[in-house]
Amino acid sequence: MDLLLDLSAARGRRRGIETALRDAVRGGRLLPGATLPSTRTLAADLGVARGTVVAAYAQLVGEGYLAPGPDGHVVRSRSVATTRTGASAVAAPLVDLHPGEPDPTSFPMAAWLAALRRAARDAPADVFAYGDRQGARQLRVALADYLGRARGVVADPDRIVVCSGAVEGLRLLAEVVGGRIAMEDPGLFVHRRVVTRTGATVVPVPVDELGADPTGLDARAAVLTPAHQFPLGMALAPERRLAFVEWARRTGGLVVEDDYDGELRYDRQPVGAVQGLDPEAVVYVGTASKSLGPALRLAWMVLPEHLLEPVLTRIGTSTTVPTLDQLALAELLASHQYERHLRRRRLAYRDRRDQLLAALGPDVEVRGVAAGLCALVVLPTAEHEDRATALAIERRIRLFGLGPNWHGERRFHGVLVGYGRPPAHDLRRSIEVLTELLGDVLAG
Amino acid sequence: MDLLLDLSAARGRRRGIETALRDAVRGGRLLPGATLPSTRTLAADLGVARGTVVAAYAQLVGEGYLAPGPDGHVVRSRSVATTRTGASAVAAPLVDLHPGEPDPTSFPMAAWLAALRRAARDAPADVFAYGDRQGARQLRVALADYLGRARGVVADPDRIVVCSGAVEGLRLLAEVVGGRIAMEDPGLFVHRRVVTRTGATVVPVPVDELGADPTGLDARAAVLTPAHQFPLGMALAPERRLAFVEWARRTGGLVVEDDYDGELRYDRQPVGAVQGLDPEAVVYVGTASKSLGPALRLAWMVLPEHLLEPVLTRIGTSTTVPTLDQLALAELLASHQYERHLRRRRLAYRDRRDQLLAALGPDVEVRGVAAGLCALVVLPTAEHEDRATALAIERRIRLFGLGPNWHGERRFHGVLVGYGRPPAHDLRRSIEVLTELLGDVLAG
Repeated sequence: MDLLLDLSAARGRRRGIETALRDAVRGGRLLPGATLPSTRTLAADLGVARGTVVAAYAQLVGEGYLAPGPDGHVVRSRSVATTRTGASAVAAPLVDLHPGEPDPTSFPMAAWLAALRRAARDAPADVFAYGDRQGARQLRVALADYLGRARGVVADPDRIVVCSGAVEGLRLLAEVVGGRIAMEDPGLFVHRRVVTRTGATVVPVPVDELGADPTGLDARAAVLTPAHQFPLGMALAPERRLAFVEWARRTGGLVVEDDYDGELRYDRQPVGAVQGLDPEAVVYVGTASKSLGPALRLAWMVLPEHLLEPVLTRIGTSTTVPTLDQLALAELLASHQYERHLRRRRLAYRDRRDQLLAALGPDVEVRGVAAGLCALVVLPTAEHEDRATALAIERRIRLFGLGPNWHGERRFHGVLVGYGRPPAHDLRRSIEVLTELLGDVLAG
Repeated sequence: MDLLLDLSAARGRRRGIETALRDAVRGGRLLPGATLPSTRTLAADLGVARGTVVAAYAQLVGEGYLAPGPDGHVVRSRSVATTRTGASAVAAPLVDLHPGEPDPTSFPMAAWLAALRRAARDAPADVFAYGDRQGARQLRVALADYLGRARGVVADPDRIVVCSGAVEGLRLLAEVVGGRIAMEDPGLFVHRRVVTRTGATVVPVPVDELGADPTGLDARAAVLTPAHQFPLGMALAPERRLAFVEWARRTGGLVVEDDYDGELRYDRQPVGAVQGLDPEAVVYVGTASKSLGPALRLAWMVLPEHLLEPVLTRIGTSTTVPTLDQLALAELLASHQYERHLRRRRLAYRDRRDQLLAALGPDVEVRGVAAGLCALVVLPTAEHEDRATALAIERRIRLFGLGPNWHGERRFHGVLVGYGRPPAHDLRRSIEVLTELLGDVLAG
């Protein structure tokens, strides 16, 4: 094919080729299914180095406009290209086992839209003025009721702060507390980065079979996942819960309880929040990211009194969370639709968990499956883990290794299987692809 | 009246009284209109110091649960108490002239809800998974089209980053650029705080009648409001626009163009964006806070290429802006409803501006009324300004003085009249209350 590219618009040759190709796809001059010239041919036509074209194609594959095919690069269908792009995107995976994400197709869209409508109808005239920096009062009242009942949190609406995902909450807390902040090792690497970036120092706290251990801990705060340790999956043992609260009281330290999926427990009573033991020593952090969907960017903190003003001062004059969304969540909570949705999801995820375990069989060691959206499949060596993640990239399976979650030395190995993430209709295939990969890794 | 208060729940006496009263109002035991016991009586009944009760009542007045009345404190109607509260709240003002806020009752609620519905219907299955950290592609495409057409911005969707209000954008930029950051003097004090809190150093740039002046400027970035200087209200003169771009090119500095209300210009052609002069030297920052409403928390930046990756890295793995809201704004932009709404609002605000000027008469000096939602009413001395803001508090008028917006010495004086903020039906009264206040200040 001849490809007429307008290279005048952009600076730099690679960027120019990228822009011209992108525009051609977007403008419809290159239609889905069209095969592009080979990198060699296009480079010769344009009089540029072949590496320049290779890099441009790679970028557009990353953005979802192109896909590599047996006969060269092919233009992908528009719906994909318009939903995943930007420097942060990768080509859509064939199987998505990202840990800690719910099935996005399970989002209760009709209920959410209805809640938005009701919230809009009942809202005061100034709902679209700058919102309360602490969060909409209706939401805080509804959360206080729900958290007290369902999670054993001592929650006063005046101590709740609504934030844009647990990540914003963690950032605010790290900025306010500063200094040495203890984090579980292993623990979610994304959270480590958030804390480090505020200038605080991360102090790793080793996790053993009872969870993290505060013995000898020298830090201003300790960030924990007591209901379901991420990524190892145990609940923090009762004596350790007490030990952390004792530590906080004795040293004036702070426990930050990240209750990211505490509502999704399958085999026994939910584990109540540590915060209930001492609301002046523990910050409770909860989120709608697992129960509804991360794209809502809705999370909340319940703060000890002495942290309320410092956190609000950090927030500044206005919340970062859209008011109408807050009011819609308040509607879902107050009408108990939130809990009904959770109950349905809990059954569905438990069933998925059972399917996964059945498919893996008794010879594979799996941890952390009493709760949540993610299982740790243990592998014998670091080499096995690395082979698994390399194979996953090759086969376009979104599957994370345990490795990046160690702050220090990797003490054992495995992959994190987000069995919550695939859409329901695709679960069986996703599990098959996974077991095949694990078979190849363990056989290799 | 006898008031049965349960003081056992909360720590501390004042806090206990506050909580018990709040619960009594919320639980309906104290009904709207009920008059509370005097502070002296309640203090005697509870056996606490009278000052403790005074402080508790004051807190609940601040939260909107109580109002001072001629016969003592009165329980306010629930609708008020549930919309404004928290440590950050003040009693609802009788007249709201907050500068730079649109009339919240003008928010196009029906269009917004319809756009949300359409966005939900057309969204891909994974719209509720973690969103693109750069912002939804549809929104970036729609913004690129709109900004190019309406604001003269050179906007490639791949250079746009969606953020949670201009404040988040400014924070990200200050974190990435660091060091000495120049800001107009006077300039919005909230923005100064945001920049300072990142650890950057604010370098004041004096504003004269042509706007800010980069002569001799020693800074890594300069934050400007070229279309409508806040708070003085002039447009940056053409020679100064060029001078800032020259400065940026010569020194490797960065111009940050805060185009907060550039779309609302009344008497002549809109002033195009400085960014169009050199997209590699200027960051363009825009927002829906003035055009639609600040509670949406929707803003955007157009970045030079070299800043894209550093800013995205700062954002981390996920945007802070809910995806569905982004897609709804994309709908409004692509269907041109956004521009139609703006056109209607522009006419309405121009009419308000004219009413304000007519009411103030020719003897009052007013600046910055060619655009935006706010006028600067100049007052002869600092004492006049301080008297005006004190009187405003006394009369429960939300009216800001120029003072806090000076980084250094106050060079002249006045009040910022946000004539955009009152609901349309209340504009006449709001202006009357203002002119009365100004009369008292100037006569005093």
